[in-house]
Amino acid sequence: MASIFTKIIKGEIPSYKVYEDEKTMAFLDIEPEAVGHVLVVPKLECDKIYELPEEDYLALMRTVKKLSSRMEKVLGKRIIWKVIGVDVPHAHVHLMPYEEEPEKIVLSPEEMEEIRAKIAE
Amino acid sequence: MASIFTKIIKGEIPSYKVYEDEKTMAFLDIEPEAVGHVLVVPKLECDKIYELPEEDYLALMRTVKKLSSRMEKVLGKRIIWKVIGVDVPHAHVHLMPYEEEPEKIVLSPEEMEEIRAKIAE
Repeated sequence: MASIFTKIIKGEIPSYKVYEDEKTMAFLDIEPEAVGHVLVVPKLECDKIYELPEEDYLALMRTVKKLSSRMEKVLGKRIIWKVIGVDVPHAHVHLMPYEEEPEKIVLSPEEMEEIRAKIAE
Repeated sequence: MASIFTKIIKGEIPSYKVYEDEKTMAFLDIEPEAVGHVLVVPKLECDKIYELPEEDYLALMRTVKKLSSRMEKVLGKRIIWKVIGVDVPHAHVHLMPYEEEPEKIVLSPEEMEEIRAKIAE
């Protein structure tokens, strides 16, 4: 069965998209730990990030690098990364601004769209 | 002034080294959050990982991928990554086995050497 991220990539499930290219896509995490919590995923469905084929892996990490600089610029904070991946069996990198005391936050659809547009250029 | 990681790379400070190539090095974190907590660093001293030159960045991420597979094989657990980087101004990626309930642990020099040797092949 297609992962939830594959459904998002195909547009079957809506998302707050911030970036897309041939091999990768990025969108807001709907359970954000910070304002501007982004997930970057490979279009190729693969559970573990370190088991991705070289080409897809390097494309993913290039997008992570590019988006981090963009996010730091618009959010004004250092960007941190996490790869845990036990929740969805489709590799994904969490990008978010560094907060001294992170906590789960709740954003309205309007607030999600506002931060999405800011990051998406 | 050289960062603590540059001093480790130069051998001025001892470390539990698990991997080294032309552009990257990996060693055990001396404040481990899990048995087999590894730091992967670029030899080029640069504060933010996403500000590394492309070539050094991709070399770093290739080492992270390679070591993760190796670590999963010898530790028998999924490997997770974190890039926070506010403690030392020299880019570094944390790699460690996924634990349901992580906590700071204390390992003796003998235990550090044992896990080092296991990961280092």
